[in-house]
Amino acid sequence: MPHISLPDGLPGIRGPMAFRPETAKPLNELAELLLRSDNSLSRGDRELIATYVSSLNACTFCWRSHAAVAACHLGDETLVDSAIASPEHAGISEKLKALLAVAARVQLSGRMVTPEDIARARSFGATDIEIHDTVLIAAAFCMFNRYVDGLAAVTPTDPAAYRDRAALTAERGYSMGQPPV
Amino acid sequence: MPHISLPDGLPGIRGPMAFRPETAKPLNELAELLLRSDNSLSRGDRELIATYVSSLNACTFCWRSHAAVAACHLGDETLVDSAIASPEHAGISEKLKALLAVAARVQLSGRMVTPEDIARARSFGATDIEIHDTVLIAAAFCMFNRYVDGLAAVTPTDPAAYRDRAALTAERGYSMGQPPV
Repeated sequence: MPHISLPDGLPGIRGPMAFRPETAKPLNELAELLLRSDNSLSRGDRELIATYVSSLNACTFCWRSHAAVAACHLGDETLVDSAIASPEHAGISEKLKALLAVAARVQLSGRMVTPEDIARARSFGATDIEIHDTVLIAAAFCMFNRYVDGLAAVTPTDPAAYRDRAALTAERGYSMGQPPV
Repeated sequence: MPHISLPDGLPGIRGPMAFRPETAKPLNELAELLLRSDNSLSRGDRELIATYVSSLNACTFCWRSHAAVAACHLGDETLVDSAIASPEHAGISEKLKALLAVAARVQLSGRMVTPEDIARARSFGATDIEIHDTVLIAAAFCMFNRYVDGLAAVTPTDPAAYRDRAALTAERGYSMGQPPV
């Protein structure tokens, strides 16, 4: 049961966002910019970073939601699951492995990121913008995860709920404060 | 030295924000809404929550910056320092002590917030909006702290740098993407 009175029928972050639309607006705008706007990192790769951090934070709603969106973009649920479970052994690029390692450091603390982590990402071609966005995606999901779980927002248990919603999100994006119908 | 090439002469979060103005816009909008817009929690109390979480994350730039802004609003640097060092023994309201305890749980993980933490805050008069905003301020500073430290942004060591900037921030607010001159 949520810690505060949230609108009925809205799972996960959608409950707190409907409760407080003022703050939902910049939160959705940030998600849209980080995960979907033009970028040399694909939408699938950026959703994987968000999913990985959410899994490390054990935030079931964000983990399942973004895994499902990543699978829509990448067209491969098994790849997403293997990248989250063991990124160093998954069938993803060396650059993405290095960026996921940076994200894992950020999840612990920004102070854990070392020059060696950054040098590894650069050695596989990561640019300043890609490093910046990886750090900010990881940091932002440390916020989103705490927002959802800190209010004990509703977490669906049926995987179908995440798949259906993900198809809509992958097509239309984060809603800039206007939830898709 | 920052992990990526940030513009010279801009301490802390201002470096990454100038590097990536697209994401700076919603980040500043979120800070303005959470810390300064109309609210039954005072600006000073909200800055204290931000400062406390930043201290728990050992993010020196955010800690010193927001402590200085809190001191501007509350007119008392010693009170700010004592509230951060030991909130349960500081000269602050019982409601604020309970909200700081919620914020400390969120800093560890959203999943650490218990019904008892929430009941304690309610027993001292905290409303749903105040609990929501406390959770989101704490979550947001888990992001801001990781953003600043994850990029190894420049952290001034001179306390005067924080005081001077805080006076401007307390007066004009977070800059909605337009840094004060």
